Amino acid sequence: MRDQIVAAAQTHFRHHGYDKTTVSELAKAIGISKAYIYKFFASKQAIGEVICSDCLEEIDREISAAVASTDHPPEQIRRLFQALVTSSVRLFSEARNLYEIAVAAASDNWPPVVLYEKRVRALIEDIVVAGRQRGDFERKTPLDEVCASIYLIIRPYMHPVILKQNLDQVGSAPGLLSSHILRSLAP
Amino acid sequence: MRDQIVAAAQTHFRHHGYDKTTVSELAKAIGISKAYIYKFFASKQAIGEVICSDCLEEIDREISAAVASTDHPPEQIRRLFQALVTSSVRLFSEARNLYEIAVAAASDNWPPVVLYEKRVRALIEDIVVAGRQRGDFERKTPLDEVCASIYLIIRPYMHPVILKQNLDQVGSAPGLLSSHILRSLAP
Repeated sequence: MRDQIVAAAQTHFRHHGYDKTTVSELAKAIGISKAYIYKFFASKQAIGEVICSDCLEEIDREISAAVASTDHPPEQIRRLFQALVTSSVRLFSEARNLYEIAVAAASDNWPPVVLYEKRVRALIEDIVVAGRQRGDFERKTPLDEVCASIYLIIRPYMHPVILKQNLDQVGSAPGLLSSHILRSLAP
Repeated sequence: MRDQIVAAAQTHFRHHGYDKTTVSELAKAIGISKAYIYKFFASKQAIGEVICSDCLEEIDREISAAVASTDHPPEQIRRLFQALVTSSVRLFSEARNLYEIAVAAASDNWPPVVLYEKRVRALIEDIVVAGRQRGDFERKTPLDEVCASIYLIIRPYMHPVILKQNLDQVGSAPGLLSSHILRSLAP
């Protein structure tokens, strides 16, 4: 039943938007009582969080697969950046409801967002550590400083509101910025 | 009279917002006829452009002064980034009307914005060229590629909508990202 509510909510949000929908309207549209929804979800946001979490897990799977598709750390940086931009643009722009949920999620730092950002940071760190071990990357700069700056450079292409302002850069930015990051990592 | 209309409009926008104000309301508030405003300005946006232009020229003066305060190109990169963030945060957050005008200006690429972005790009290029001549920076990567990627890294801290989403990074980002840029520029 939980999954059915989420699926029905997703369809409803797609047509009517996430922001404007109330739990009452949602219950009416699904054909169940508001109380029944509250048996499974504490709030509209709780439903939104499940949708958001599914969406971010999908991006996570895609970028992890892109990174795993090579064992050359410099190339992993390129693939991570490219996959992240491609997946995010596709998911946020394909359905207005997802974009609205993503904006709410990013603005209020919903738990799935915090988890996702941690995952991306961990992926970056894994690549940098591997690259340092193999001698592909320099080792003088503190690891956390290097990872934090790479994350800051990638972040504008993960965040839904920022990404929307960056859509005209989306074609060239992953390549240009990956090359820039790799120059900064040169031993 | 032109200047007086702009000054009165700025005060009016400060209290009532830019987006919601019409030229009729503006005329009424200033105590002149709508036709008289149209003698000087083709639209509300034309007034907004003057305010926007003044605001961007102020940022431009501050960042140019910051760059001119040293002749060491690596330090110029740091000062440019820091001054840009400090000025932008101050201007966009000090008055709601400026933020609203900045958002409209950035979304629709008003002429003063195009000019301002060109100025920042030119400043970056001047610094990189000087640093290459002095041997501070590497010369292998094509100049336009280096400048484009530095601009892409700085851009999220110039753009009003993006900057608003980045406010929690504003303390550490200029330092971290300047260091990152300088590592990428190392000869």
